[in-house]
Amino acid sequence: MSRPNRKVVIVGGGFAGIEAAKRLGKCDCVDVIMIDKSNHHVFQPLLYQVAMAGLDPSDIASPIRSMLSSFRNVRTLLGNVTGVDVERRLVYSDAGKFEFDYLVVACGAVHSYFGNDQWEQHAPGLKSLPQATEIRRRVLLAFEQAERTDDPTEQYHWMTFVIVGGGPTGVELAGAIAEMARYTLKRDFRSIDASLARVILVQAGERILEQFPDDLSEYSKQALESIGVEVRLGDQVTEVTDRGVQIGDHFLQARTVIWAAGVQASPLGQSLGVPTDRSGRVVVEPDLSIPGKRNIFVAGDMASVKDEDGKGLPGLAPVAIQQGRYLGELISREAQCFVIDRPAPERSRFKYLDKGQMATIGRRRAVAQSGRFKLTGRLAWMAWLLIHIAYLNGFRNRTFVFLSWAWSYLTFARGARLIVPKNWRITKTSGPAKTRG
Amino acid sequence: MSRPNRKVVIVGGGFAGIEAAKRLGKCDCVDVIMIDKSNHHVFQPLLYQVAMAGLDPSDIASPIRSMLSSFRNVRTLLGNVTGVDVERRLVYSDAGKFEFDYLVVACGAVHSYFGNDQWEQHAPGLKSLPQATEIRRRVLLAFEQAERTDDPTEQYHWMTFVIVGGGPTGVELAGAIAEMARYTLKRDFRSIDASLARVILVQAGERILEQFPDDLSEYSKQALESIGVEVRLGDQVTEVTDRGVQIGDHFLQARTVIWAAGVQASPLGQSLGVPTDRSGRVVVEPDLSIPGKRNIFVAGDMASVKDEDGKGLPGLAPVAIQQGRYLGELISREAQCFVIDRPAPERSRFKYLDKGQMATIGRRRAVAQSGRFKLTGRLAWMAWLLIHIAYLNGFRNRTFVFLSWAWSYLTFARGARLIVPKNWRITKTSGPAKTRG
Repeated sequence: MSRPNRKVVIVGGGFAGIEAAKRLGKCDCVDVIMIDKSNHHVFQPLLYQVAMAGLDPSDIASPIRSMLSSFRNVRTLLGNVTGVDVERRLVYSDAGKFEFDYLVVACGAVHSYFGNDQWEQHAPGLKSLPQATEIRRRVLLAFEQAERTDDPTEQYHWMTFVIVGGGPTGVELAGAIAEMARYTLKRDFRSIDASLARVILVQAGERILEQFPDDLSEYSKQALESIGVEVRLGDQVTEVTDRGVQIGDHFLQARTVIWAAGVQASPLGQSLGVPTDRSGRVVVEPDLSIPGKRNIFVAGDMASVKDEDGKGLPGLAPVAIQQGRYLGELISREAQCFVIDRPAPERSRFKYLDKGQMATIGRRRAVAQSGRFKLTGRLAWMAWLLIHIAYLNGFRNRTFVFLSWAWSYLTFARGARLIVPKNWRITKTSGPAKTRG
Repeated sequence: MSRPNRKVVIVGGGFAGIEAAKRLGKCDCVDVIMIDKSNHHVFQPLLYQVAMAGLDPSDIASPIRSMLSSFRNVRTLLGNVTGVDVERRLVYSDAGKFEFDYLVVACGAVHSYFGNDQWEQHAPGLKSLPQATEIRRRVLLAFEQAERTDDPTEQYHWMTFVIVGGGPTGVELAGAIAEMARYTLKRDFRSIDASLARVILVQAGERILEQFPDDLSEYSKQALESIGVEVRLGDQVTEVTDRGVQIGDHFLQARTVIWAAGVQASPLGQSLGVPTDRSGRVVVEPDLSIPGKRNIFVAGDMASVKDEDGKGLPGLAPVAIQQGRYLGELISREAQCFVIDRPAPERSRFKYLDKGQMATIGRRRAVAQSGRFKLTGRLAWMAWLLIHIAYLNGFRNRTFVFLSWAWSYLTFARGARLIVPKNWRITKTSGPAKTRG
């Protein structure tokens, strides 16, 4: 007689969680619960395009529920996980508490303001769809405000955009804002010349795209400058307000600031009661389990993993995807052994196969690096396009993203230039204003 | 020597305002300012498809600024108009005050809760994009909540949807929810059977689609019932709470209520100091000017206009479009005469050319009526598709809407099933919660 199925709980429907769930969905010895606080999986590498009005939120997002609906042993729940009892093997959430035999925690990361959380209201980060639409709203609104005012100084401040952080996200945002101002918006205004918008990329380090080889960083800097972005290296932002940023003893006036600097792991990692690194990431074992608990795993941006050379793995989609697959296979194998009452095989360590990395600069250039192989310019950009479309979830998203890009490329237009207000209500009778009337 | 150009201010970038601006853009004797409180024009007839996750907001919206950018004499401003001084010919707004020789007021309508504005929080209406995404959020969230709970009564209440109002919007929403539950969501849940969702359309009148001929109303009712919608006729909603609606002496338990009943004109009409009808619409002269002021016009859903037979015109897109064109031509003509110092010709009255009306029921049926010609079923649905695509603004939107529909039709999937939270911020240091820590 066989033993019961193993219960697996996955927290987080990002790249790691989805890949793990897909593998486990094919294993008939496990029952899986996938919990995420939102109902959709987001293709994070294209989030900046939503922020820049090039793509729609739904182009890069898919309902987790329908991504996993063909796996009858996977149950998807919308819920906030509030804590984990590692000893009693329980996950607590606002959707109920769940027992597990195996737990995969993969809730990703948010931006870090290095202890200055009050900066966030003035400088949104870019890790989720609501943040992307907020950035879109701010950038488009800034041009509208500049058009509305007669004061040239105010116009200048509305048309100054500061992006803090020179990683891929910062580079992609800076390039996109500069080109949107130059091409898309140029003809649309009467009082301002949108193409005169000032875009400043502030990087604390000595070069942008620090994970890339030196020459690619240098190429990217020149490419950004050629489309009008000012790149400031070695500059530390020490204050952010609604009027701009403080850099050293100079206050840079700008009504729009976007944060693309530090990263901080989801706080759920800390609740596991094991050591975390400076960014709040859980320092995991070579098999991604947490110290002392072989059945609890952390993956994706929440995990601090070192490869065999002792080098830390970057917070990239391919890392998360490979980790998710690895965990799905590991748990499937052990669950099968458990059900037929055989001893589980020795666990092998997680090995990251580094296929390389890439970043785009504006509408025609990119940098790509894979091992010793490097590529820049138009060819890199085309490689970037193809790879990102290939990795998108689902035929529909692929088709629509491809068409949106083709459309934008040919017309310089951006299809999603909507400033959508946050409040949907017309009447507000609950407030005191109306009851007076 | 010719006299200076005439200043025209248009308030509102809906169908009427946009059409007027496009006509005036071709006239070199006018300078036009277009003010709208949002940056985009919305194709209202397809708003329900955004609410039902079939289309993206940007599929049916276009930036007003770029729609009008080719007309160099038109300036577009994002702004809230706060008042009009009809004597001094001034428009006041948060984007500044503007003089006018001609004023076109076309700010549309919102839903009316018949003096019970507190109902809005429990039963959103559908007149704008934020409202459409709010309805989408609520409908999708209701199924998620039903899946989360173990209590069958709670599940039942979460899976009960009430739509108040049996006009085209109510009929289209009811049909879409019923079919989404039946086809799109059916396979995605584990604890609930989404196809058992109860959809109730509550209509105060004796038949739905009252503007249509009797037999089309009856056909629509049967078509709705055949896809599982309960149609309740002659039922008045007397209370709305977060748990459902009161109908007569029965309280109908439902966690999701959508308001598609009465209409109320934008309050700006009342500030013009002229008579308004019961719905707040300005009663205009046959040339759409307000009584006593030949240079101030009201158009679209804000205007109460009677045709030559004394019958009131309905609040439909074609009426607004034709009124906008009429005003654009009228003002162009008079401005040309003014500049060359000739007397203006007599004004002819606005005449509505009634091409008919249509409404869809679910994914394969519609009703259409044009004069004495009537159409139902699949053929009417195909006519509806073609006409709506033809009237959409811009090649891009047409292509994307067509592809989305083709995709949904073939796969039963809905591309935009995203529940996007309203708050984009991760940290909330300003509140008291964090400062304690």
